[in-house]
Amino acid sequence: MMSGNLNFEVSRLGECTIPSPMRGVRFVGDEEHVLFNSDLNSIRRYLDAGNEPPRFETAGPREKIFFDPSKLACGIVTCGGLCPGLNDVIRAIVLSLHHHYGVRTIYGFPYGYEGLAPKHGHQPIMLNPQVVAQINEMGGTMLGSSRGNQDVSIMVDTLERMGIGVLFCIGGDGTQRGALDISEEAGKRGLKLSVIGIPKTIDNDVSYVQKTFGFETAVSEAKKATHAAHSEAAGARNGIGLVKLMGRDSGFIAAYSVLVDSQVTFCLIPEVPFALGGLLGALKKRLEQRSHAVIVVAEGAGQELFEASGERDASGNIKYGDIGTYLRDAIRDYFRRIGMEINLKYIDPSYMIRSQPANPHDSAFCLLMGHNAVHAGMAGRTGMIVGFWNHQFTHVPIPLAVSTRKKIDPTGWVWSSVLASTGQPAVMK
Amino acid sequence: MMSGNLNFEVSRLGECTIPSPMRGVRFVGDEEHVLFNSDLNSIRRYLDAGNEPPRFETAGPREKIFFDPSKLACGIVTCGGLCPGLNDVIRAIVLSLHHHYGVRTIYGFPYGYEGLAPKHGHQPIMLNPQVVAQINEMGGTMLGSSRGNQDVSIMVDTLERMGIGVLFCIGGDGTQRGALDISEEAGKRGLKLSVIGIPKTIDNDVSYVQKTFGFETAVSEAKKATHAAHSEAAGARNGIGLVKLMGRDSGFIAAYSVLVDSQVTFCLIPEVPFALGGLLGALKKRLEQRSHAVIVVAEGAGQELFEASGERDASGNIKYGDIGTYLRDAIRDYFRRIGMEINLKYIDPSYMIRSQPANPHDSAFCLLMGHNAVHAGMAGRTGMIVGFWNHQFTHVPIPLAVSTRKKIDPTGWVWSSVLASTGQPAVMK
Amino acid sequence: MMSGNLNFEVSRLGECTIPSPMRGVRFVGDEEHVLFNSDLNSIRRYLDAGNEPPRFETAGPREKIFFDPSKLACGIVTCGGLCPGLNDVIRAIVLSLHHHYGVRTIYGFPYGYEGLAPKHGHQPIMLNPQVVAQINEMGGTMLGSSRGNQDVSIMVDTLERMGIGVLFCIGGDGTQRGALDISEEAGKRGLKLSVIGIPKTIDNDVSYVQKTFGFETAVSEAKKATHAAHSEAAGARNGIGLVKLMGRDSGFIAAYSVLVDSQVTFCLIPEVPFALGGLLGALKKRLEQRSHAVIVVAEGAGQELFEASGERDASGNIKYGDIGTYLRDAIRDYFRRIGMEINLKYIDPSYMIRSQPANPHDSAFCLLMGHNAVHAGMAGRTGMIVGFWNHQFTHVPIPLAVSTRKKIDPTGWVWSSVLASTGQPAVMK
Amino acid sequence: MMSGNLNFEVSRLGECTIPSPMRGVRFVGDEEHVLFNSDLNSIRRYLDAGNEPPRFETAGPREKIFFDPSKLACGIVTCGGLCPGLNDVIRAIVLSLHHHYGVRTIYGFPYGYEGLAPKHGHQPIMLNPQVVAQINEMGGTMLGSSRGNQDVSIMVDTLERMGIGVLFCIGGDGTQRGALDISEEAGKRGLKLSVIGIPKTIDNDVSYVQKTFGFETAVSEAKKATHAAHSEAAGARNGIGLVKLMGRDSGFIAAYSVLVDSQVTFCLIPEVPFALGGLLGALKKRLEQRSHAVIVVAEGAGQELFEASGERDASGNIKYGDIGTYLRDAIRDYFRRIGMEINLKYIDPSYMIRSQPANPHDSAFCLLMGHNAVHAGMAGRTGMIVGFWNHQFTHVPIPLAVSTRKKIDPTGWVWSSVLASTGQPAVMK
Repeated sequence: MMSGNLNFEVSRLGECTIPSPMRGVRFVGDEEHVLFNSDLNSIRRYLDAGNEPPRFETAGPREKIFFDPSKLACGIVTCGGLCPGLNDVIRAIVLSLHHHYGVRTIYGFPYGYEGLAPKHGHQPIMLNPQVVAQINEMGGTMLGSSRGNQDVSIMVDTLERMGIGVLFCIGGDGTQRGALDISEEAGKRGLKLSVIGIPKTIDNDVSYVQKTFGFETAVSEAKKATHAAHSEAAGARNGIGLVKLMGRDSGFIAAYSVLVDSQVTFCLIPEVPFALGGLLGALKKRLEQRSHAVIVVAEGAGQELFEASGERDASGNIKYGDIGTYLRDAIRDYFRRIGMEINLKYIDPSYMIRSQPANPHDSAFCLLMGHNAVHAGMAGRTGMIVGFWNHQFTHVPIPLAVSTRKKIDPTGWVWSSVLASTGQPAVMK
Repeated sequence: MMSGNLNFEVSRLGECTIPSPMRGVRFVGDEEHVLFNSDLNSIRRYLDAGNEPPRFETAGPREKIFFDPSKLACGIVTCGGLCPGLNDVIRAIVLSLHHHYGVRTIYGFPYGYEGLAPKHGHQPIMLNPQVVAQINEMGGTMLGSSRGNQDVSIMVDTLERMGIGVLFCIGGDGTQRGALDISEEAGKRGLKLSVIGIPKTIDNDVSYVQKTFGFETAVSEAKKATHAAHSEAAGARNGIGLVKLMGRDSGFIAAYSVLVDSQVTFCLIPEVPFALGGLLGALKKRLEQRSHAVIVVAEGAGQELFEASGERDASGNIKYGDIGTYLRDAIRDYFRRIGMEINLKYIDPSYMIRSQPANPHDSAFCLLMGHNAVHAGMAGRTGMIVGFWNHQFTHVPIPLAVSTRKKIDPTGWVWSSVLASTGQPAVMK
Repeated sequence: MMSGNLNFEVSRLGECTIPSPMRGVRFVGDEEHVLFNSDLNSIRRYLDAGNEPPRFETAGPREKIFFDPSKLACGIVTCGGLCPGLNDVIRAIVLSLHHHYGVRTIYGFPYGYEGLAPKHGHQPIMLNPQVVAQINEMGGTMLGSSRGNQDVSIMVDTLERMGIGVLFCIGGDGTQRGALDISEEAGKRGLKLSVIGIPKTIDNDVSYVQKTFGFETAVSEAKKATHAAHSEAAGARNGIGLVKLMGRDSGFIAAYSVLVDSQVTFCLIPEVPFALGGLLGALKKRLEQRSHAVIVVAEGAGQELFEASGERDASGNIKYGDIGTYLRDAIRDYFRRIGMEINLKYIDPSYMIRSQPANPHDSAFCLLMGHNAVHAGMAGRTGMIVGFWNHQFTHVPIPLAVSTRKKIDPTGWVWSSVLASTGQPAVMK
Repeated sequence: MMSGNLNFEVSRLGECTIPSPMRGVRFVGDEEHVLFNSDLNSIRRYLDAGNEPPRFETAGPREKIFFDPSKLACGIVTCGGLCPGLNDVIRAIVLSLHHHYGVRTIYGFPYGYEGLAPKHGHQPIMLNPQVVAQINEMGGTMLGSSRGNQDVSIMVDTLERMGIGVLFCIGGDGTQRGALDISEEAGKRGLKLSVIGIPKTIDNDVSYVQKTFGFETAVSEAKKATHAAHSEAAGARNGIGLVKLMGRDSGFIAAYSVLVDSQVTFCLIPEVPFALGGLLGALKKRLEQRSHAVIVVAEGAGQELFEASGERDASGNIKYGDIGTYLRDAIRDYFRRIGMEINLKYIDPSYMIRSQPANPHDSAFCLLMGHNAVHAGMAGRTGMIVGFWNHQFTHVPIPLAVSTRKKIDPTGWVWSSVLASTGQPAVMK
């Protein structure tokens, strides 16, 4: 999964020389780290070869910081699709900047990177503890969001003009690539601009980060959809409940929805290809035996069934075929053809899941995520995201973070538990 | 709304002669009733004309009953689409038959009226307090359901063969018409068969019944969809959240969803026609002013925008055009045409709403509903449904119940509160 | 329940002469009413005696109003204990005053009637749609509350000084008596002050009002406590879950909690006295048979077990003995004495129930409640509360409303359903 | 925290020789492990000293197993207080034994270790997938529980008599010590008995395990109590909401409840002693400034305020003073003494929290926990619990697991975030 020459080193704007205003806290030393590997053999291999084993810098407050809080202005943007916890993270950043460090100038840029491009005409919002007090009770993002990047040069012009010292970019892959561009452009101009990413992926698919915010909540909400699908399916003869869940490249939400609700009888994820005929045959068999079935399909599953269109959306992601409606129609056609009456109910709860507020435990995670982003920014780190690895918050260089996606291992334990629960054939050809 | 020559009289199988086994209860006398009208002028008009003002028989346990519980077999069917509380009603009927009257033979017929037609091959399920103990925690119906009626003669054959004395039919309009047919066919054959309906309409649109089970829960669940729509809309520039809710002929759920969530900015219901152009213009204006909007549309709204197809579904209902996807596409087309970029998110939560278990207060209502159905059946009433009128449970003859639908009055108080909350134009032409 | 010489007439400040600014609404005529009785015999008795049958004035907007909105100042107070929906009602009043009538000066008086007594030093809060936009998502009351009344003369001084035309008093019995005092004192002074009450009683015990806000939510929340009690009881040998619920004089919440959760095995309410020995004996028997039990006790139940202390709380209510801890100790003592090991878990969820936000359906009810309060105030009614009777909103004179409490009828249908569900002895002596 | 001579070695009953019936799974090799430390320096210290760094055996299915499933009988007990997820774990064990390995004889022993002592007369319950299908929707434990251990020799007699091969013990510290005793006694007798513990501690205080089931759910439920406390406090002049939460020795739930709800103004945990005077002074100050306060106190906090009684409960835990009611009374006394009127509402939600079903994400964790317990048992491990470390499931020898408790570090990051959120003085003397 991980090759030796990946760079775990996070960039720094310069020496930290200003004493932190935080009191009574155990500061994190710059040498503290979290090993990437958890088994001795991998580590020994590095050591025997005279190399340092790969490791993340440990996140947390530093005794000396880079920016003088009294002179610092910060900015926050939220980009891409909604995810539970966005408002929690915004709130955590504002509270930490204000209460931990005494920063008094915090701008929220509206509608993602658009907010940094003057042509869109969005006015920045002044943020403070009052403004963000209750926002975490609401889903969505109080700043608004948009997809895609803007011209880097223009965005950095804005940041320079407004005297921003730390920019917090909450978003997915594309957003973090944009954050890296901003960081590099600022570097070229000699600006002291720290760009700190907070990885937002409801799919939980960031490599080098074991847990991202919103995922727990999404799993909880997905249960409502699979329960509904089961009620509908069980309530009709040859009832089929078909639920499309999020998961473009990684089927974590779909797989966990099975671990949560054992009524699901088929789970389809991007990591495990299937043939339509294989699925339909297995479905027919299931109906004959039990007269109802519940199918969960991740949005990125079965893309091999579509011809590549090559189209991309505003975020630069390849446009996927809509596997949900495709399956819905294909299943109906098949059973019509073979003369078997079915009752299919199709449920697409995606917008209702991603627009929820974070559940309480997830919300606490967002708070700590946001705090650690602030500590990183105050310490002058840049071009990095905050990660979570082996139960500790970490600093992850953006190039490393976006280099690959985390996926479900089809031979691994999660998928094996899914198969045991659904009872579906391991291979559907 | 109500003409004087409607018949409020409920049919009886014969004289009640067997003492009720219930103890310590205030029995309801056969002369007890609930007046249909609540104002003196209407009542006086009847009295002055020498007529009895229309009134419902009061539901509840009778001191003498018609059936001997020790020899009685009963049956239950659930028909049509899912509705929160179906399992509660099944459970209430079983518990009351068992604990109040000592009935020991209760069949659940699977998949609606199909369960009464041998050709479908469904085996009846034996019901008792153990079997139904926890079913109310689950959505859907443990008996399964189907749409449409079966041949009356065949159904009555089955009931006759199985010696059913009371049949409980939980379902909507069509189901109750079927129940009436069964009751009449049984009457012709001289069978002592009591057919008791429990009105199931998530839309809360039964005339002569002020409240039906599932509606409270549906309103509560709809809030999740309008909240999601608002989060999505507010999270994007020119964001539009479009939510389709249940309501074929009556917009109660849609209207109440506005009373619950004041973020909704447009509410469209079947009772208030609108012109597409009027809506689009008002929507454009709203976006220009506030840059986001939330639209709630009842499934039966705007049917005047479609050409009549004349098709009917298995329940005999006219097939409606899909106003949700129609509006979604029409709105996108319009703004594309006028060159205004929007972000529309379409949410159809119907299956997730109707498959929920009843919320606790609704659940208590289902219990009382079911108990009163049993009392009516034990007293040998037939061809009636259990109603709720002026805070009391009532007996409503099926012909009366299905004669017209309850609708929102466009000049009345509910709709005026909706308009005040959304701020939408009263007329959109 | 109801004697013929009770006065259903609501006081009016004077003639309504100003045209309502509301548009497109069906206005309610002053002659419209809702009959108190729903059966013909009672009504005939009045008519035959040459009397008018008792009836409530129908609530709703009037075509002509008494106050000129452009010159009107209004005030709102919330008094007594918390109840789900308080913030909804505040919000509904503000929204209706603002949007329906164009009133621009609305004061919230902090901490109940204290806010009208200068010596407490509370500053009124200016209310408008912005301020109240999201308050209904939070439990409690944004205005704060206090128990008990203040000197009437001083309160009216304040109202006179501030030029208040309509005062909305949200609270229970004591509060409404205070409201009546204010109304009468204002009348004596010749002030044009409309005092409109909104009945707040989580116990749902106001006579002449069939439904009060917060009750539905309370029933829903109570289920969590009875579920918890059952899990605890079933999880231990001879486990007993004891839950104290609200209900000083009327056991509606306790009784409904049984209709909602059939795991409850004993329900104790103020309306049905019991002997301690009878309860303990029945409890022992139940444990011997099933080895666990769940008891729900309303706070006002079993007061005959205490010696009268004669003490009163700040609201003027008689101080009740704490039946919850009394039973907890008495049960433990008893089983210790007879040498039977039990596991009793005592749960008092009252504060967690009453501090919840209203659930969505309840919330819609609060909205309509608040709107109708505003209509009554604008029409110059005074000394009245808004009621709900036979599915319609009504005006109820305060003296009538506080004349008696609604209680559960021990021979009636609700209690009989409770007994059937718990299986407890009807009499426990 | 961790000394080099602790033993990470898990006992094995003997050689694994039977091929696992699981298919298509990646089996875990016996040499796979998870390093205890995550930093290179600690690891190097071990290596430089010629020692192996401490590490956990990795959990998961083995290619060869110890028991022949067709001849195997298994048993499950749940001990101690309730915790969300107990039923999930029972269910996961049953499903995995049945579906993964084909085991057909699974006994549930009722009421904890009592179920293994014949004198209590409890009959074992036969478990299979049908029986456990929906139990995870309910809180509590379907097996019942009890506190304390039974005579080891008698328990092993029972297991021997019934031919149990694997015993699963779900419980806390004391339970696991009992499990170890059973395992050792069985070893002395030469029985092939595998004893596998699943750590149950809602407090999340097991050392060597980073996450235990039920904690996420407890944090979510605790929010309802702190919200209620805030509504009550804010709703009254000088309102104080006092919430007692679980946490005998470790304040994780209390601390997380602050990270979740920033309305909490004081958090008291066992790890951070405080003087009563210091707290009261700070509370007075807070009331003077903001006129309300919310206090969260872990049940084990402030034990230094009580004189040691030396008493122990049935589980062998030292009986703690009731800090909740102590503080309630002390605060009331103090403010009465200084003549400042307050409104204190005391909320103890413990039973309502611990009796909840697990939330969905927690539920998935329970499933994986249970599966891994089964794999360990089938592989003939014994005297161990299933742990979770660095994102992987592990085997932890019981002596190691019970050697010390996990606590909040008062200089660490969690507590610093708590202080930042509450604004309470770091030291209250």
